[in-house]
Amino acid sequence: MSFTGSIDYFSLETPLFLSSLLPLLATTNADLAPAILNGVLLSLVVIYLASKIGSEIAKYLNLSSVLGELVAGLVVGISALHLLVFPDSGLDGSSSIVMQLLQFVNPLDPVVLDRVFAAQSEVISVLAELGVIILLFEIGLESDLRQLKQVGAQAAVVACTGVLVPFVLGTGGLMLLFNVSAIPAVFAGAALTATSIGITSKVLSELGQLKSSEGQIILGAAIIDDVLGIIVLAVVAGLAKTGSIDAMNVIYLIISATVFLVGSVLIGGFFNRSFVTIVDRLKTRGNIITTAIVFAFMMAFLANALHLEAILGAFAAGLVLDETDARNELDELIKPIADLFVPIFFVTVGARADLSGLNPAIESNRAGLVIAGFLIVVAIVGKVVTGWVVFGQPGINRLAIGAGMIPRGEVGLVFAGIGAASGAIDKPLQAAIIIMVIFTTLMAPPLLQIAFGKPDEPPTATAIKSTSDPVN
Amino acid sequence: MSFTGSIDYFSLETPLFLSSLLPLLATTNADLAPAILNGVLLSLVVIYLASKIGSEIAKYLNLSSVLGELVAGLVVGISALHLLVFPDSGLDGSSSIVMQLLQFVNPLDPVVLDRVFAAQSEVISVLAELGVIILLFEIGLESDLRQLKQVGAQAAVVACTGVLVPFVLGTGGLMLLFNVSAIPAVFAGAALTATSIGITSKVLSELGQLKSSEGQIILGAAIIDDVLGIIVLAVVAGLAKTGSIDAMNVIYLIISATVFLVGSVLIGGFFNRSFVTIVDRLKTRGNIITTAIVFAFMMAFLANALHLEAILGAFAAGLVLDETDARNELDELIKPIADLFVPIFFVTVGARADLSGLNPAIESNRAGLVIAGFLIVVAIVGKVVTGWVVFGQPGINRLAIGAGMIPRGEVGLVFAGIGAASGAIDKPLQAAIIIMVIFTTLMAPPLLQIAFGKPDEPPTATAIKSTSDPVN
Repeated sequence: MSFTGSIDYFSLETPLFLSSLLPLLATTNADLAPAILNGVLLSLVVIYLASKIGSEIAKYLNLSSVLGELVAGLVVGISALHLLVFPDSGLDGSSSIVMQLLQFVNPLDPVVLDRVFAAQSEVISVLAELGVIILLFEIGLESDLRQLKQVGAQAAVVACTGVLVPFVLGTGGLMLLFNVSAIPAVFAGAALTATSIGITSKVLSELGQLKSSEGQIILGAAIIDDVLGIIVLAVVAGLAKTGSIDAMNVIYLIISATVFLVGSVLIGGFFNRSFVTIVDRLKTRGNIITTAIVFAFMMAFLANALHLEAILGAFAAGLVLDETDARNELDELIKPIADLFVPIFFVTVGARADLSGLNPAIESNRAGLVIAGFLIVVAIVGKVVTGWVVFGQPGINRLAIGAGMIPRGEVGLVFAGIGAASGAIDKPLQAAIIIMVIFTTLMAPPLLQIAFGKPDEPPTATAIKSTSDPVN
Repeated sequence: MSFTGSIDYFSLETPLFLSSLLPLLATTNADLAPAILNGVLLSLVVIYLASKIGSEIAKYLNLSSVLGELVAGLVVGISALHLLVFPDSGLDGSSSIVMQLLQFVNPLDPVVLDRVFAAQSEVISVLAELGVIILLFEIGLESDLRQLKQVGAQAAVVACTGVLVPFVLGTGGLMLLFNVSAIPAVFAGAALTATSIGITSKVLSELGQLKSSEGQIILGAAIIDDVLGIIVLAVVAGLAKTGSIDAMNVIYLIISATVFLVGSVLIGGFFNRSFVTIVDRLKTRGNIITTAIVFAFMMAFLANALHLEAILGAFAAGLVLDETDARNELDELIKPIADLFVPIFFVTVGARADLSGLNPAIESNRAGLVIAGFLIVVAIVGKVVTGWVVFGQPGINRLAIGAGMIPRGEVGLVFAGIGAASGAIDKPLQAAIIIMVIFTTLMAPPLLQIAFGKPDEPPTATAIKSTSDPVN
């Protein structure tokens, strides 16, 4: 009997005759709310069970728990069990096992079922986005601004190399070896550029390497890389649409990204003090966590509004609050919240990945598989080399840095989606990009683990001291 | 560039010509996802700022912080600032200040804007429902099953009295004094019956009275009352639709409610042990909180699936886990999660309440206002008397029990909504019910505070011992 569910937008479109097909109370809009809530509850139960089983098995096998959650997502998602599927996969509500269970406990008309399916999928999608926002906020809290600044130059070099090399190798290779024409080749090359911060940072955190110099270079490079990826996307999408590059848009993005990142760090010093003052003045429950989350969400909103990524804002917010006295308490308070939100992100990333293109027995898959193989090689080589451009850091683990840049995650999929939607790339090439993304995402956690050696080793947080300012 | 947002269901309905009106990337469905995410982020920032400002002012004035959050909701919602409005209020996206801000940072076509508005409202609505589920889970954790069992008989008497008296007085009064015909009178009478567990339990928790005998009687009565409310709703809705009572449905609801509540308590003893065993075996982060939330959400799903309320399941889950060794740790872990989710519920309850019907200068409001005055008197008298039916508890605070049963909250609004949608009640009567709900919800927190005396007093948790089994 909750009245919080609002589904009025359905009412305009649901044909009147449907009302008579529905049970007793179906004449009011509020009646879909329990079904949507139930869909969300059941999906979350599936996500949490999958994430726990996946991460526990991974832990038992001494693998990264992120890998466990991604694979668990593959198992419950579109590729296998269909427990957790999304409308953008092309499936309708009746293909989702969660929706079938809802049907079982409370029969719904097929049209209504699809509405419920769409609405609950939308909610889970936003929860997943909030999950990666909270993850990056937590990563920001675990990071150290001074350390990040110290490795800034190295991170920038790594980021630029890691964008240029895969782009040139990918675009050139597709044109020369596979006779792909220029625009689709540029699209696929661009899809090879941007590293997934979420996956890399979480694995670094698990390995206790977030504060090592390698970890800070990877993190800094992934952040810069993400901004470069947004710019590359704007360029490529403009190229696909109009055949020319929208220089103003590119300049706008470069300026807004710079202003945002530099601005966050500069105002950070000011906000540090006001944060503690505000928190101390508040007398009601949740003073620290609510203030922190408001700041994180506002920064995420700002970044998103500037056409950057929400996660950049959340990361900057975490970096700023890491400098305050409330840091330790905040670290403890954010943990259960992250434990609740972050698995939604990783499991849905896995659940959305469609492995059906990987079956070589199907004739139509083969063209995509061959290209995919090429893209995977470029994706790995193009990022691994970045470890060797790091300067002034003798004894640094170069393989680890290269490995940390490998996962493409969500960004590559956005390229594939936009490329396909605009008609710039054909189906085999799109499938190849998706396979490359899945492969690099799944291989990065174990590769990072190998590159860093045993996870039981103490984190090399002191390694950076060799080059750091003695004043610190 | 997140790809987790899925809004494919829009694509089937968006006319093709719109695509050309939209900016560069608008040809793919994934492009609404950043706007929806931004709407959610901005709405959450509004909710958290409102809840903190409201609860801090309330605290300063020595009032309940729930009252502060409800009033803050009124201020940001449909009645005043229009920062947080919902499509079911009849407003479209352009009336929402949050959506205007989104428009400002990223212009959207009006049709697309309404889609974004609908989707973000849906997400906030579900988050609010998750909020009250988590609140009741936390209340369950704070409650004591043995104490609840001890006051079970008194709670049942209070609940039944609190359903019968307002129903008879309300229905009879409307028919005799206002010449309302039978079916609308029965509807309004039914809307007077069910107490809002969420508001009452949160205020009790704030006052440190959740474990007093008064608190446990109120809580137990509110739970039973909620189940009775569901049965009354089924009866009344059937009556309005077919003119007769669907006896099978009523029997089904009574049986499923009884089986669910008794079953939860019985299996509780078994699950207690397995919970601790499972938690101890899990080696990855979030072992306690994820297992607890999976249990809570599964119970909420079950209750919802049985046509009971999700919050009943969450409360039962909390009660069961309160008996385990992990209780203290769980109490700490659930707090930041509750701090994040629960304010969404209280602020949206306030934001959805439309006070425009309260203006007596508007001619058409007057009929509703007179009836509302009558309903408010019945709503208060009908629940306050329940304090005096408590037996075998000498010295108990009877006024506090009566006051605790007063808030009607969401349940009354559901009655008003279903009654209006089915044509059983007219607009003035609907407005009167809504005003009664707003009034009882807002007056209950300060009234409870007055009835219990100063909030600084130590909780009278030991008061129950006078009648308790000496073996305990």
